[in-house]
Amino acid sequence: MNAKVEEMKERIVPQGRAMILAYDQGFEHGPRDFQENEESSSLEYILDIARRGGFTGIVLHAGLAEKYDRQIREAKVPLILKLNGKSELYTGDDPYSPQLYSVDDALALGATAVGYTVYSGSKYESQMNREFAAIIREAHNKGLPVIGWMYPRGKSLSDRETASKTLKMALKEQEKTDLAIDETPSIVAYAARIGLELGADMVKVKYTGSLESFRRVVQYASPTQVVMSGGPKTSTDEEFLSRVKDVLAAGAVGVAVGRNVWQRKDPLIISEKLRQVIFGT
Amino acid sequence: MNAKVEEMKERIVPQGRAMILAYDQGFEHGPRDFQENEESSSLEYILDIARRGGFTGIVLHAGLAEKYDRQIREAKVPLILKLNGKSELYTGDDPYSPQLYSVDDALALGATAVGYTVYSGSKYESQMNREFAAIIREAHNKGLPVIGWMYPRGKSLSDRETASKTLKMALKEQEKTDLAIDETPSIVAYAARIGLELGADMVKVKYTGSLESFRRVVQYASPTQVVMSGGPKTSTDEEFLSRVKDVLAAGAVGVAVGRNVWQRKDPLIISEKLRQVIFGT
Amino acid sequence: MNAKVEEMKERIVPQGRAMILAYDQGFEHGPRDFQENEESSSLEYILDIARRGGFTGIVLHAGLAEKYDRQIREAKVPLILKLNGKSELYTGDDPYSPQLYSVDDALALGATAVGYTVYSGSKYESQMNREFAAIIREAHNKGLPVIGWMYPRGKSLSDRETASKTLKMALKEQEKTDLAIDETPSIVAYAARIGLELGADMVKVKYTGSLESFRRVVQYASPTQVVMSGGPKTSTDEEFLSRVKDVLAAGAVGVAVGRNVWQRKDPLIISEKLRQVIFGT
Amino acid sequence: MNAKVEEMKERIVPQGRAMILAYDQGFEHGPRDFQENEESSSLEYILDIARRGGFTGIVLHAGLAEKYDRQIREAKVPLILKLNGKSELYTGDDPYSPQLYSVDDALALGATAVGYTVYSGSKYESQMNREFAAIIREAHNKGLPVIGWMYPRGKSLSDRETASKTLKMALKEQEKTDLAIDETPSIVAYAARIGLELGADMVKVKYTGSLESFRRVVQYASPTQVVMSGGPKTSTDEEFLSRVKDVLAAGAVGVAVGRNVWQRKDPLIISEKLRQVIFGT
Amino acid sequence: MNAKVEEMKERIVPQGRAMILAYDQGFEHGPRDFQENEESSSLEYILDIARRGGFTGIVLHAGLAEKYDRQIREAKVPLILKLNGKSELYTGDDPYSPQLYSVDDALALGATAVGYTVYSGSKYESQMNREFAAIIREAHNKGLPVIGWMYPRGKSLSDRETASKTLKMALKEQEKTDLAIDETPSIVAYAARIGLELGADMVKVKYTGSLESFRRVVQYASPTQVVMSGGPKTSTDEEFLSRVKDVLAAGAVGVAVGRNVWQRKDPLIISEKLRQVIFGT
Repeated sequence: MNAKVEEMKERIVPQGRAMILAYDQGFEHGPRDFQENEESSSLEYILDIARRGGFTGIVLHAGLAEKYDRQIREAKVPLILKLNGKSELYTGDDPYSPQLYSVDDALALGATAVGYTVYSGSKYESQMNREFAAIIREAHNKGLPVIGWMYPRGKSLSDRETASKTLKMALKEQEKTDLAIDETPSIVAYAARIGLELGADMVKVKYTGSLESFRRVVQYASPTQVVMSGGPKTSTDEEFLSRVKDVLAAGAVGVAVGRNVWQRKDPLIISEKLRQVIFGT
Repeated sequence: MNAKVEEMKERIVPQGRAMILAYDQGFEHGPRDFQENEESSSLEYILDIARRGGFTGIVLHAGLAEKYDRQIREAKVPLILKLNGKSELYTGDDPYSPQLYSVDDALALGATAVGYTVYSGSKYESQMNREFAAIIREAHNKGLPVIGWMYPRGKSLSDRETASKTLKMALKEQEKTDLAIDETPSIVAYAARIGLELGADMVKVKYTGSLESFRRVVQYASPTQVVMSGGPKTSTDEEFLSRVKDVLAAGAVGVAVGRNVWQRKDPLIISEKLRQVIFGT
Repeated sequence: MNAKVEEMKERIVPQGRAMILAYDQGFEHGPRDFQENEESSSLEYILDIARRGGFTGIVLHAGLAEKYDRQIREAKVPLILKLNGKSELYTGDDPYSPQLYSVDDALALGATAVGYTVYSGSKYESQMNREFAAIIREAHNKGLPVIGWMYPRGKSLSDRETASKTLKMALKEQEKTDLAIDETPSIVAYAARIGLELGADMVKVKYTGSLESFRRVVQYASPTQVVMSGGPKTSTDEEFLSRVKDVLAAGAVGVAVGRNVWQRKDPLIISEKLRQVIFGT
Repeated sequence: MNAKVEEMKERIVPQGRAMILAYDQGFEHGPRDFQENEESSSLEYILDIARRGGFTGIVLHAGLAEKYDRQIREAKVPLILKLNGKSELYTGDDPYSPQLYSVDDALALGATAVGYTVYSGSKYESQMNREFAAIIREAHNKGLPVIGWMYPRGKSLSDRETASKTLKMALKEQEKTDLAIDETPSIVAYAARIGLELGADMVKVKYTGSLESFRRVVQYASPTQVVMSGGPKTSTDEEFLSRVKDVLAAGAVGVAVGRNVWQRKDPLIISEKLRQVIFGT
Repeated sequence: MNAKVEEMKERIVPQGRAMILAYDQGFEHGPRDFQENEESSSLEYILDIARRGGFTGIVLHAGLAEKYDRQIREAKVPLILKLNGKSELYTGDDPYSPQLYSVDDALALGATAVGYTVYSGSKYESQMNREFAAIIREAHNKGLPVIGWMYPRGKSLSDRETASKTLKMALKEQEKTDLAIDETPSIVAYAARIGLELGADMVKVKYTGSLESFRRVVQYASPTQVVMSGGPKTSTDEEFLSRVKDVLAAGAVGVAVGRNVWQRKDPLIISEKLRQVIFGT
């Protein structure tokens, strides 16, 4: 791995730990995510949380990254440009999240890393794997680390009949039966492994329900680093923090979290708690 | 945001207000739009309205922009080249409006800005998002602002059964039940937000039925500027002007209007009224 | 419009009138079109008609244009290279006529203009609009005028149930009920208008059944010039010539005709009559 | 037509006659074609036939052409690189034979000409026409002649109901009713004509059942040269030679034959007879 | 064949024999393949087997190849970069394995050869043939040998009704009826032949059930070299070694094996036995 990529990744994972603020929900979910805390629709508000909360990176699409270019640089929070995205308005098919910006766009916007979502199991998996692999090759050549949002999803997986045939061998382990497909340990581990095989420097995956099962996700992805996706806001701070402790104990380097921070009444309080858990300071 | 883009946008939004004349209907709707006022099929007639009515921009496809290149420059009305378009002759599928001209074509034709329509919710949404994002990157690099026609449309949205599942969470607010999908406040706000996330400098959206709901569209799109799409001719001038007042009060910078101007008996009268409302002069 | 394009168009439309010989039927329809007059399968025979009949252009595919390069130049009949085409052997879907040659190919073959067919209303309309728009941009940059074969066609249009919904507003005018979809005045006018909006210098459209309805086609396409497509051989010379007189009176600049010339016993006789009607000499 | 292309074609059609050995069956049909004569699976065996039998060209895919580069050059049999191909393992759809190698690949391998199959009537016809046309333009620019395998095929044609509608006008002539679709005279003639219209220098078509009907194929393709495709091994040498005599009398320049040579016990005997019929020596 | 390609291939096939360690299963099958031997999820463990077991090549995706670049070079085991891949999470369609990395990526990673899987018989066969052919042309131009994973698969083949029609002629030989489609001798031989026709230097195919039938696979692929794919772990070492002896006797140059090595208790024991069989030392 070249030194430049390592140096850039060090900025997002200082002391081997990552606490990333995700803010691509305006595109992925739309305004409904801002209704819990109306201030959260403004990047200035979010950027303030990122800076004061001590986050080690902020995930943005190119529009916000460009329009708040000066403020982002001043806040000194590393920019992670999300290179693909999709809205939830179209629902008629397996998910495909097309590449929207290039590695060169990321460099021009001053990004420290780039991100890309792969919906493994989707009928469009091959297009996403191809785009993701090309992004990794180019980003590494140009000195940028790459984070994979590895989210198993699609009819092949959710269709029980298909699933029972497909996953019979994969699911030897004991699983909690109430987990969604993209929280199933074997499936999450498989998705994380795909990130490694394609060359991602970090993968962002869902919590798998237990420390033990997450440990295997970390094992199969290693040496690619793993962060837990924050997901929908939990009822209490403790519920969320307990998951974070699990994944850290399992070997993950941290979290990439959005709603569990900025949908709360006081995002700085949960940020402070998170920081304690992740960095111990 | 680079200075050149700002300077160009200033021409279309002088004093922070925009009054744009839309004239892509010959392609989008065909001759039926000209039947209310047969003179309206001629660009010379339209250009005269634009110039004498004090419009701050005119939206054209490349054919008219090229054939009337000299007259457009003489009229000193900024040209907004619409980079994509579709006819209404094909109706068998979700809408896709393909990119037809490049940013370089726009520069060669002397355009001050470019426009592009995204049908969010269409099964071809990913293609349009990709084209739109690439146009924004290139246009900004070359000093041109970009306007997004953000129109939610497609079977995913119009199909009630799908919609009820998809939009349940999105539609927490009280909605008028007679609104079309592309006038539903949450949906319009989502589409406008996509424009911001992708980097549009201005978005053109449908009226959402009330000042209050439009205020949230403006909020979620901010700092991307919002203009209201004129839409089909209203029964009276007042009905149309009342909507314009609403959206301005909600924070929009103005309108992009076609049929409500040039389908009327005397387009200069409504233009004068519009100017009063928008610029107060 | 640049001077070079105008100069080239002048060759095809001398004195503001065009009399173009179409000879792409070997590809579009196959040998059945040659059975009325077996000599018509040979380009040498056709070229002789073009030269002696005083045609102002001849439409060919690249194969014949290349193989008879010397003879075409000697005949001094301007070459119009048809850039797309399709056979009638595949019938299972809406029509798509792919681009086969480039503008540079046309220049290399000494063409004075290029042609392209758009089947508006086809499910592949977006692909054809995109190819056609790109051809126009490039051809104009390189000094060649562009002629659009604007032919509305496809299931969306021919399906009565769909049509009744789609075209209700478009068809306000009184129509002859026995017209095919691609002869319906509103639809033909819409297709012609698309040619203008995309930047065509000339459009070739079907006869719409009357002088009056064709006048509106010309109006909506203006300033793009209009020629009538010759179509299948009429029973008598007079029937065909009567249509030509109609469209000229309606403002068309002439015709692009194949079968109505070279399927007749003596093509030079009808050519002479045509010339009288179009040029008055 | 440029002189370099003519010079190269002269090598394959010396004295205006062509006797081409086809050897792309390992890809198109697989090992079953080698079972009649097990030695035929080896190119060295085939090349020996080509050289000693006096063939004027040998058709190969790039793999064999590259691996036996030295031997092919030493045998002094002109190489015709087949640029597209498909296996018969996939059978679920209309045929599409994708371009696999470029004109530059052909030049690098020392080819004297290139070949390409078009399945006219297939739903993928437009892709093949586009690839074929581009190959012709590029090959001619670089001095290589192009041979079209013109094979009408696809559901549109084979489906009787569709066919009856589509071909009613095309099939005015008296046809033998037991001919396969790709042997129907009108259809073969149409396919050959497409080769001419796109610019092929030679077309390879199936036998149409009679001298008379093949004469019209030659007429409609002229001046593109025609060779008969050898097809499956006939019961006797005479049956095959009788067809060859027919097509030569009809104006064809020769044959492109594989199985009817190398599936026989002694390929050199039939080669000698063929040579007598084609070259008279 | 150029000298550089030969020289590189010599490294993987020293003394005309190949013993290749396959390790792309983390992508192709996911974590379930690692459950037999948990250490096998780590490339360091695998690389140690490759080095100490005397393997002549190791197959990896770009992610692992890049992250363990230094260790791979130090182990002096030639790297074979697998250029395409797919997960087994998507199961709803015929298989397509998209190209993920380029020949230049392989060179940058220090690869000695590249690999690519073709699923002949899949509805996406044409895309894979096209990618594979282009990779071969480019790799050979740049001095790298190419290995084809030739795996017949897809609904056309597995569907009995279709198969009975399609393969009737192909399956003249006596077949064991319990073979999977991709182990059927004629089908495997066809796939191997496609590798030759496209230009592969080596093909990796499944065992066909007998020495005799494998001999014909080797014959039809010649002079392209053949290696047997290891496949799922057999019950005993002897069962696997017996197959290896068969294919070597049939003319194959060796094996490309993964699970039959690293899923065993002690991979070095089977490696030693394999080496004895393949190299006799």
